[in-house]
Amino acid sequence: MASTEGSKLWGGRFVGDTDPIMEKFNASIAYDQRMWDADIRGSKAYVKALERAKLVSTDEMEQILHGMDQISDEWSRGVFVIKPGDEDIHTANERRLKELIGAPAGKLHTGRSRNDQVVTDMRLWLRSAISTLTDNALQLITTMVERAAAEIEVLFPGYTHMQRAQPIRWSHWILSGAIAGTPFDIDRELLQRELGFDSISVNSMDATGQRDFVAEFLFWASLCLTHLSKMAEDLILYSTKEFSFIKLSDAYSTGSSLMPQKKNADSLELIRSKAGRAFGRCAGFMMTLKSLPSTYNKDLQEDKEAMFDCYDNVQAVLQVTTGVMSTLKINQTVMEAALSPDMLATDLAYYLVRKGVPFREAHGLSGKAVFTAESKNIALNQLTVEDLTGISPLFGSDVSSVWDYRSSVEQYSAPGGTAKSSVAAQVEHLRNWLKKHAQ
Amino acid sequence: MASTEGSKLWGGRFVGDTDPIMEKFNASIAYDQRMWDADIRGSKAYVKALERAKLVSTDEMEQILHGMDQISDEWSRGVFVIKPGDEDIHTANERRLKELIGAPAGKLHTGRSRNDQVVTDMRLWLRSAISTLTDNALQLITTMVERAAAEIEVLFPGYTHMQRAQPIRWSHWILSGAIAGTPFDIDRELLQRELGFDSISVNSMDATGQRDFVAEFLFWASLCLTHLSKMAEDLILYSTKEFSFIKLSDAYSTGSSLMPQKKNADSLELIRSKAGRAFGRCAGFMMTLKSLPSTYNKDLQEDKEAMFDCYDNVQAVLQVTTGVMSTLKINQTVMEAALSPDMLATDLAYYLVRKGVPFREAHGLSGKAVFTAESKNIALNQLTVEDLTGISPLFGSDVSSVWDYRSSVEQYSAPGGTAKSSVAAQVEHLRNWLKKHAQ
Amino acid sequence: MASTEGSKLWGGRFVGDTDPIMEKFNASIAYDQRMWDADIRGSKAYVKALERAKLVSTDEMEQILHGMDQISDEWSRGVFVIKPGDEDIHTANERRLKELIGAPAGKLHTGRSRNDQVVTDMRLWLRSAISTLTDNALQLITTMVERAAAEIEVLFPGYTHMQRAQPIRWSHWILSGAIAGTPFDIDRELLQRELGFDSISVNSMDATGQRDFVAEFLFWASLCLTHLSKMAEDLILYSTKEFSFIKLSDAYSTGSSLMPQKKNADSLELIRSKAGRAFGRCAGFMMTLKSLPSTYNKDLQEDKEAMFDCYDNVQAVLQVTTGVMSTLKINQTVMEAALSPDMLATDLAYYLVRKGVPFREAHGLSGKAVFTAESKNIALNQLTVEDLTGISPLFGSDVSSVWDYRSSVEQYSAPGGTAKSSVAAQVEHLRNWLKKHAQ
Amino acid sequence: MASTEGSKLWGGRFVGDTDPIMEKFNASIAYDQRMWDADIRGSKAYVKALERAKLVSTDEMEQILHGMDQISDEWSRGVFVIKPGDEDIHTANERRLKELIGAPAGKLHTGRSRNDQVVTDMRLWLRSAISTLTDNALQLITTMVERAAAEIEVLFPGYTHMQRAQPIRWSHWILSGAIAGTPFDIDRELLQRELGFDSISVNSMDATGQRDFVAEFLFWASLCLTHLSKMAEDLILYSTKEFSFIKLSDAYSTGSSLMPQKKNADSLELIRSKAGRAFGRCAGFMMTLKSLPSTYNKDLQEDKEAMFDCYDNVQAVLQVTTGVMSTLKINQTVMEAALSPDMLATDLAYYLVRKGVPFREAHGLSGKAVFTAESKNIALNQLTVEDLTGISPLFGSDVSSVWDYRSSVEQYSAPGGTAKSSVAAQVEHLRNWLKKHAQ
Repeated sequence: MASTEGSKLWGGRFVGDTDPIMEKFNASIAYDQRMWDADIRGSKAYVKALERAKLVSTDEMEQILHGMDQISDEWSRGVFVIKPGDEDIHTANERRLKELIGAPAGKLHTGRSRNDQVVTDMRLWLRSAISTLTDNALQLITTMVERAAAEIEVLFPGYTHMQRAQPIRWSHWILSGAIAGTPFDIDRELLQRELGFDSISVNSMDATGQRDFVAEFLFWASLCLTHLSKMAEDLILYSTKEFSFIKLSDAYSTGSSLMPQKKNADSLELIRSKAGRAFGRCAGFMMTLKSLPSTYNKDLQEDKEAMFDCYDNVQAVLQVTTGVMSTLKINQTVMEAALSPDMLATDLAYYLVRKGVPFREAHGLSGKAVFTAESKNIALNQLTVEDLTGISPLFGSDVSSVWDYRSSVEQYSAPGGTAKSSVAAQVEHLRNWLKKHAQ
Repeated sequence: MASTEGSKLWGGRFVGDTDPIMEKFNASIAYDQRMWDADIRGSKAYVKALERAKLVSTDEMEQILHGMDQISDEWSRGVFVIKPGDEDIHTANERRLKELIGAPAGKLHTGRSRNDQVVTDMRLWLRSAISTLTDNALQLITTMVERAAAEIEVLFPGYTHMQRAQPIRWSHWILSGAIAGTPFDIDRELLQRELGFDSISVNSMDATGQRDFVAEFLFWASLCLTHLSKMAEDLILYSTKEFSFIKLSDAYSTGSSLMPQKKNADSLELIRSKAGRAFGRCAGFMMTLKSLPSTYNKDLQEDKEAMFDCYDNVQAVLQVTTGVMSTLKINQTVMEAALSPDMLATDLAYYLVRKGVPFREAHGLSGKAVFTAESKNIALNQLTVEDLTGISPLFGSDVSSVWDYRSSVEQYSAPGGTAKSSVAAQVEHLRNWLKKHAQ
Repeated sequence: MASTEGSKLWGGRFVGDTDPIMEKFNASIAYDQRMWDADIRGSKAYVKALERAKLVSTDEMEQILHGMDQISDEWSRGVFVIKPGDEDIHTANERRLKELIGAPAGKLHTGRSRNDQVVTDMRLWLRSAISTLTDNALQLITTMVERAAAEIEVLFPGYTHMQRAQPIRWSHWILSGAIAGTPFDIDRELLQRELGFDSISVNSMDATGQRDFVAEFLFWASLCLTHLSKMAEDLILYSTKEFSFIKLSDAYSTGSSLMPQKKNADSLELIRSKAGRAFGRCAGFMMTLKSLPSTYNKDLQEDKEAMFDCYDNVQAVLQVTTGVMSTLKINQTVMEAALSPDMLATDLAYYLVRKGVPFREAHGLSGKAVFTAESKNIALNQLTVEDLTGISPLFGSDVSSVWDYRSSVEQYSAPGGTAKSSVAAQVEHLRNWLKKHAQ
Repeated sequence: MASTEGSKLWGGRFVGDTDPIMEKFNASIAYDQRMWDADIRGSKAYVKALERAKLVSTDEMEQILHGMDQISDEWSRGVFVIKPGDEDIHTANERRLKELIGAPAGKLHTGRSRNDQVVTDMRLWLRSAISTLTDNALQLITTMVERAAAEIEVLFPGYTHMQRAQPIRWSHWILSGAIAGTPFDIDRELLQRELGFDSISVNSMDATGQRDFVAEFLFWASLCLTHLSKMAEDLILYSTKEFSFIKLSDAYSTGSSLMPQKKNADSLELIRSKAGRAFGRCAGFMMTLKSLPSTYNKDLQEDKEAMFDCYDNVQAVLQVTTGVMSTLKINQTVMEAALSPDMLATDLAYYLVRKGVPFREAHGLSGKAVFTAESKNIALNQLTVEDLTGISPLFGSDVSSVWDYRSSVEQYSAPGGTAKSSVAAQVEHLRNWLKKHAQ
């Protein structure tokens, strides 16, 4: 080995047996201690398998199980002491076990690598975490469904392209958000299937070297928060002075340090911001995974902070959104006043369709009516029957029936539509879905 | 309207009725024409529903169906002519229908918006696309499984941290890659469930405004290609002069324009590069979705190019990987020569475990043996029994049995392990899985 | 070489000398032909260096230069024919040169690798591209500056958290957008410095293996488009029925296929969507770069499509934004009507600060006034002097001076503020900046 | 306000005046306390400006300055107590100031919003942070330059596509890494220019609402770490058993919990992993910024954790890389033994070029020689002159001069090349650059 006496020649700072910066860089105990319970549960299960394989005696198993229970108790009571050298939760628990029961502790890790242990602990932790998130999501969906049921009579403008489109029920909007929340459920099934440990890993290299369950969790978290960012954007819009459709509870607003009159929808802005954060974690982890050689590489250590951070943020967002949705007040008067006759132009076209005009042509004729009203600087429903028959002889006095927002809404009674019956059916559908998932 | 005469005052280039740049910016026909078939299938189904609802007559329906078949024929034969004003595939097909059958064409879009049409077309297109990708993936997995079956006798070093770890079967490595491919199957089920149209959308706002099926497809594509980037990295490594484990077929290598002796694994490098590309598409689309107000906004137009690009790249990568894997040659001599006695240090520890030493202690004793061998500058298996008993009195002459790579490998007969029986079981498992999925 | 006769055993599709899919996967001519001019300019410069080094004769150099001019002419006239085997623009031009001038063509690439050529071409192409983008950006900034100058008298609400905050000049908003555009200029200097070829690469491995100039361009494109996405969001908001501050020109709006009354701000939505797309390209390329071994690897081929796509999108966005900004009409009446007395609550606090009250206390007193007005259900400026002196004895009849939006705005005359003089100074600053950059 | 008594109807958990989850979600004190010094420096400067503007008296200014110094002292000694209600560092410092000096504290924030304060603090903090990172980067570059100077005689294979390409100096490789580090310097200038506060913000809306300096810092951190991930990948490769070019110091390696013989390059793997993490932060923040309305929105709160996390990781990576580079040992014997005659095939072509053969033809002839040697199963330099003249009559006995690695390397004496003089010039260039930047 043709060594050259490095440190002297190029003056790096002194490096003894261990570089303390490297030690800190390498250690994960600061964040992975969060998995203490999963680690203990995993080890307790493992020692039973060792006993069955005659690799530890029944007595040794009992000692290990007992020691593990003591450690669990220390963690629960917040008295577990992390010592220098405890680089991760696995080392810390094993070190403590040795202090408590001595020699038999050394047998606990026969035949399993730390990588096995890390992956098992993460899966166990994530299984519990997803269960909590699911409860939070169900709580949010329940809030939305019951709110939709209670406020089913409120109409307001539906928007596409942020422009008023057609009158819809407020409950229809609420449920579109609740449904966007449900894909989260797929996640639960997918991950529970994977984490339920019903089946075993088919290939040992694949089992320790891949982190699909983490990557997928990070992406589901991102997609879930992206949906909530969209809902938050709508609500921020609706709470502007210009829209004034809703008013946030003070519990979810903050004032301005400068402007005394301000009441800001900080809660919604924070909800909106977290999609980026979660997706950043997903992006970072995917980039770390890219072109990593197979099996374990230390790069995979990035998995845990990303997983924890996404969990914390999804949980906070779900809880705050539940709070926001259960306390905001709507201003029905303003919402309904925002409906305007031009939003019934499609209905005007349908009026002609029902009299046999092809839709494309009817669309054109209704557009002409919109233009005529604009030219006259009047509302669409203020056009006289004469104005309308000038556009198409098929218009008659029965056109007046078009100008009713409630009947307009009631037309959309197909499943998923905005008619009362249809929205009520969505409420029922979601209530049943909730019943199925919320035992 | 307090207008100010813009164009004159601030000298922007002249803008007439339509800014041609805006028109191009807005149009999607250049790429969405790819969905011509899905668009026609969707319209044919829709007109049947219109007829049942008495919104078109049976005769009109027949005309529309016939016209659509003619258009389909034009696309198939590559003679469909896109005209100015055909901003997307939907407009183009409708415009052509009108040319072919006249007035009744105008009835086709009664009661559905272009947004409905876009989403339906995308789902139909993606359903076919996923079916093709699944076939490609099955082809790749078949290749890998059969290769694993044929080469089950070949041993070589397993690596963790890119350092030689323990002897494993070459087939074990191959199957770890094949299994990494299978999560793709989940995708198929998930999306087919969603795209199978067994169920209807529960909420109309959610149905046209969300693009979860696109976002999820983009992420699955990214994760699939990330797995393949990892496999490519291994293979690039194995094909370096220093490793020399494998030799790529000339069909998947290229030379250098400068260096006559070079044979580069371009195919593998391209495979490795595509994970980034696909994930970039996913990242871009997620960012576009972030905080978008509910329902349709034109921003969603970004969905199609991303979807097409990921599809094209996943397909090319799967096909090229299949080609690479079915034609590469392994160098069994070099692979087995790369096995070195220090890779049996864990086995040496297990030898002691079997004699009753706790694993942690046995690990330490084996480490001492490694250190002794290094100090003497000999291989681990060249230590004498005396050397070993100096480390632990439990070592005996039967330690010689440890120094056999094949018996070492055979120990790992647990499911997922690297013993012949275990690898053969993985082959069987995958063959059955393939049978189930490849009808 | 212990080969196993792969293709037969595992049934991959037949692979002959070259797999056509691999060929297509490998080729870049479909998109890199766009650099034909840069490639020719680079080769013409290179042959002159070869001649000076006596590696080609003067006569050969002349032949090569002449041939290159012919090829350039063919590309310009759109008659250059790409042939099978032309895998990239460099190969295509060299193949054509050989057809035109024979043997001397073979000397052109003495001592440079294709990688050198690719990088040089990309730098040359990007230098021109950035110059075009800079012109487009200057055009946009000019439009905004002149619009700000022309409409300096218009007041409207400034928003923070999407809530009305304080009255500001419309021009102040416009200029905040124009300034956000200027960081782009840094890009120009940075890249021009790098691409100006004033200096040579310090290390040959670094020169061909790194793509910082691409990564940086992709990020600058993303940041630039992120700024424009924010500006687009504001304008979409301002063009909602509820805000009605601006009206887009028909040239930049589209109608709805379903709803005859709709006029959608598609142009702004497309502008808003492109930040995601560009950043996706940047994310994808960064992921491809991650952990790539040094020097050239084929993975780098991902650089070109990303670069072209970002260029095309930034250019289109800049042009469309220029069009939008030069043609939109503002509704001054509505904008000024949106000002409300509560937006002067900060001024009310400042009134007290000027009478010696510490700001934190004054802020609290003004807040009390806001609350009193809300309780009485009247506007803040409708509080009587008695109401106010009840809150603080320092209020006097001169408080009426607070209730004037124009004087409120005029207070902010510090640089960067919203007073007329300050906004005019910003206009001047930008006009000078434009003069400096727009020769 | 048509309120509906929400909380009762839809059973959300009770929400009183403030939801404690919202409070925690909203607070930033847990991480922004890190800017305590910047906040105090900023406030001290601001109060001086207030005094000059006669908004505080000289006496009040003195009290505030004195109070601020006390607070600074408390933070330095680690005794500052954060109290409930201290939602961020600005509030905490102001609250403490009030406790210390009473009423005058309330004047400190006259005329500036918290948003101003946040942005100023971040800029001040980042200016110091970048200065530290620059020192760390200079330390790393110094280590590399001096190592390159000391080991200039060592040759080893240069690789492209991870295949042996041409012989190069080890120092050439080291310097390609050092140069990749230098773009970081551009960052310093760019940000220092921006953060040096030489100039003032041109537009107040732009000043508080944009976070370009954060986004750019995050991207520079990503690009810097991407370079280091590439260098780490090379070094991990070089430290495999198969390459065995380098041996990491024990201070930067770790063992395996399972396999006693393993010595893993954990330090390099962690370095490699951090590019993803940093870029994830950048991606997340860009996504959060996308389409955010202008001026301040609470979403911007995501800026700080991202900035801190990138800073911490860049700093740790630079320090660990410095440690790794200053302590690793190279194995010159193995490195030079890895040079093989086929790496001189380009030189063989150049031999012919010097005899007048066009390069493309010479490349082909050299390729033929490579093929002949392969067919005969001998090394390229073992071909006889007869073998070679059979390929081209221009080969003569002087061809033997080609087969010397050192003379091959010496040919590349152009700037940036791998000849000793050229590498020495790079060392000098970097030493001068360091001198300029490291005062």
